[in-house]
Amino acid sequence: MIDRLIEGIRRTEAPIAVGLDPVLDFVPDFMKKKIYEEMGETPEAGAEALWQFNRGITDAVCDLVPAVKIQVAMYEQLGVPGMEAYRKTTEYCKGKGLAVIGDVKRGDIGSTSAAYANAHLGRVFVGEKEYALFDSDFATVNPYLGSDGVNPFLKVCDEQDKGIFVLVKTSNPSSGEFQDRYVLDLKDGARTDHLPEREGGVSLETLLRSLGPEALTEVKVRPLYEMVGEQVAAWASNERLIGKYGYSEVGAVVGATYPAVGAVLRKIMKQSYILVPGYGAQGGKGKDLVHFFNEDGLGAIVNSSRGIIAAWKSEACAEKFRPEAYGDAARAAVIAMREDIRTALES
Amino acid sequence: MIDRLIEGIRRTEAPIAVGLDPVLDFVPDFMKKKIYEEMGETPEAGAEALWQFNRGITDAVCDLVPAVKIQVAMYEQLGVPGMEAYRKTTEYCKGKGLAVIGDVKRGDIGSTSAAYANAHLGRVFVGEKEYALFDSDFATVNPYLGSDGVNPFLKVCDEQDKGIFVLVKTSNPSSGEFQDRYVLDLKDGARTDHLPEREGGVSLETLLRSLGPEALTEVKVRPLYEMVGEQVAAWASNERLIGKYGYSEVGAVVGATYPAVGAVLRKIMKQSYILVPGYGAQGGKGKDLVHFFNEDGLGAIVNSSRGIIAAWKSEACAEKFRPEAYGDAARAAVIAMREDIRTALES
Repeated sequence: MIDRLIEGIRRTEAPIAVGLDPVLDFVPDFMKKKIYEEMGETPEAGAEALWQFNRGITDAVCDLVPAVKIQVAMYEQLGVPGMEAYRKTTEYCKGKGLAVIGDVKRGDIGSTSAAYANAHLGRVFVGEKEYALFDSDFATVNPYLGSDGVNPFLKVCDEQDKGIFVLVKTSNPSSGEFQDRYVLDLKDGARTDHLPEREGGVSLETLLRSLGPEALTEVKVRPLYEMVGEQVAAWASNERLIGKYGYSEVGAVVGATYPAVGAVLRKIMKQSYILVPGYGAQGGKGKDLVHFFNEDGLGAIVNSSRGIIAAWKSEACAEKFRPEAYGDAARAAVIAMREDIRTALES
Repeated sequence: MIDRLIEGIRRTEAPIAVGLDPVLDFVPDFMKKKIYEEMGETPEAGAEALWQFNRGITDAVCDLVPAVKIQVAMYEQLGVPGMEAYRKTTEYCKGKGLAVIGDVKRGDIGSTSAAYANAHLGRVFVGEKEYALFDSDFATVNPYLGSDGVNPFLKVCDEQDKGIFVLVKTSNPSSGEFQDRYVLDLKDGARTDHLPEREGGVSLETLLRSLGPEALTEVKVRPLYEMVGEQVAAWASNERLIGKYGYSEVGAVVGATYPAVGAVLRKIMKQSYILVPGYGAQGGKGKDLVHFFNEDGLGAIVNSSRGIIAAWKSEACAEKFRPEAYGDAARAAVIAMREDIRTALES
């Protein structure tokens, strides 16, 4: 699947995923009004509004970009009808030739992660019959539970030609709370041998005493996101998951809002595509993106959600586009984003 | 909501959440056969089988326990009809007076986490009308994205009288890969000042040189799960979230498979209820559970899923119970689990 994504990026010359993360506030009133009149102000009507809105955006941008990222939370909040809108949006975008990244951020213990992997990328049996239900091309995965939680996704990626993006350094302001913490790179197994299990931890002095004097030069200290990034590189390196352009089905999420971190992680995860959220509304700029790409111009795909799908509501656009032309406003925003990225990559 | 859970635990004298995490293999053939004959081997039929199975289990155990934990992944893998079975199961269990823990392990950046919080614990507007859709009593939350990702859940807990359990130390074998890593407890803001942003990290010697000599005794080193546990304690301490028995709406998940870790975290998160998975099929035993409880016998609720709902398939039960009596087998398993926990807590 990573090969198809790369081919799409080359064809469109736009390493962009449009984020179909709508809330009802993004849907123009004329559209909601008509739907509510027909269906009442019901969850079904809300879900129908999201779906019709998505279809308009997709029709307007599908020749410009290779991929969409669909944030499942926005649909989940409309309950079961919302999940049907999520499914229909995925199906519609795939029909338009777009790669669909299901932004689900799932992750659990082994058998449960297998269920999530089947739900979003794989297949499930009912009796003798097999179904692919939500059926995204890629899914985002939370690594907090370790390899147990990720391995079922790797298996499905291999069997079904799908891909994942593992959260490494997220774009939000508080991502550093745990992800930036400096971690001691002790050899495996040494972890629980050297430190007592008691609250409050031990001082560096006590640690060094128990590790021996050579630890001072031998033990490295680095941020947790780097350690997660190295683990992603290890998952990605499985040769069954490497495509014909040298990239793996196992990618990573690294926020545009942390460009210096992106530069470090780019080097650590050489075979991984980086999905870069945080451009636009969250503050990431074109020039920040340079470090996420490799020298061949590949290696990253940048997401923008609000900046594109809610472009029609922005002050700048409100003068140029009527609400009925929300798709045109989205198209203009994609073109501007594409130019911003091109300019940054060329300089 | 934590008050109601505690009252349920006291009433039943069983700090147990039955895990409604069914797969189609757990549903007896007689039940599946009938449903498939009526509906075909469709996702709708699979979802109907899970729902009918759950109803049988719930009817059989609802007077014995205060709560169920419903693992959404098992329903998600049956697509939209699966999500409807999840919703119906939640509604049915609440109707039986059970507290429902939606085991969704969600977590994202702020605005997206708000959507998840609304989806599972809160309310959503469509036009002027307000709906509570999946409407669990509690949800599990993944902390990897930091406070941004958790705060929207805290807000909903406060406004809607709901609760959460934050993943701290999970029950799976690989949970230590990241959660057990030793982390330097540098003061906030010191994190990015002292270490260069370059791959590979720095040696302890370099770190100490930049921190100054007092760091040797002042800087503590402790596992990541402890740091997450302290953050949970901070979230939990918000007085608006403390119930009448002194416990907070903000609890934590700590696996039964790591009892020594449980003992440490019990002390750190004094006001948090601990949801303890991993009992039974995953290897946790009654005697392992003692450390998760406070001296008042409160503070923990233990989950068992397969050990209860698939009890009818176990060798020991197959002699005593026919498949039609899968509910009776579950009931017997709950009673045995209750005795196991009581014996452990008394000794």
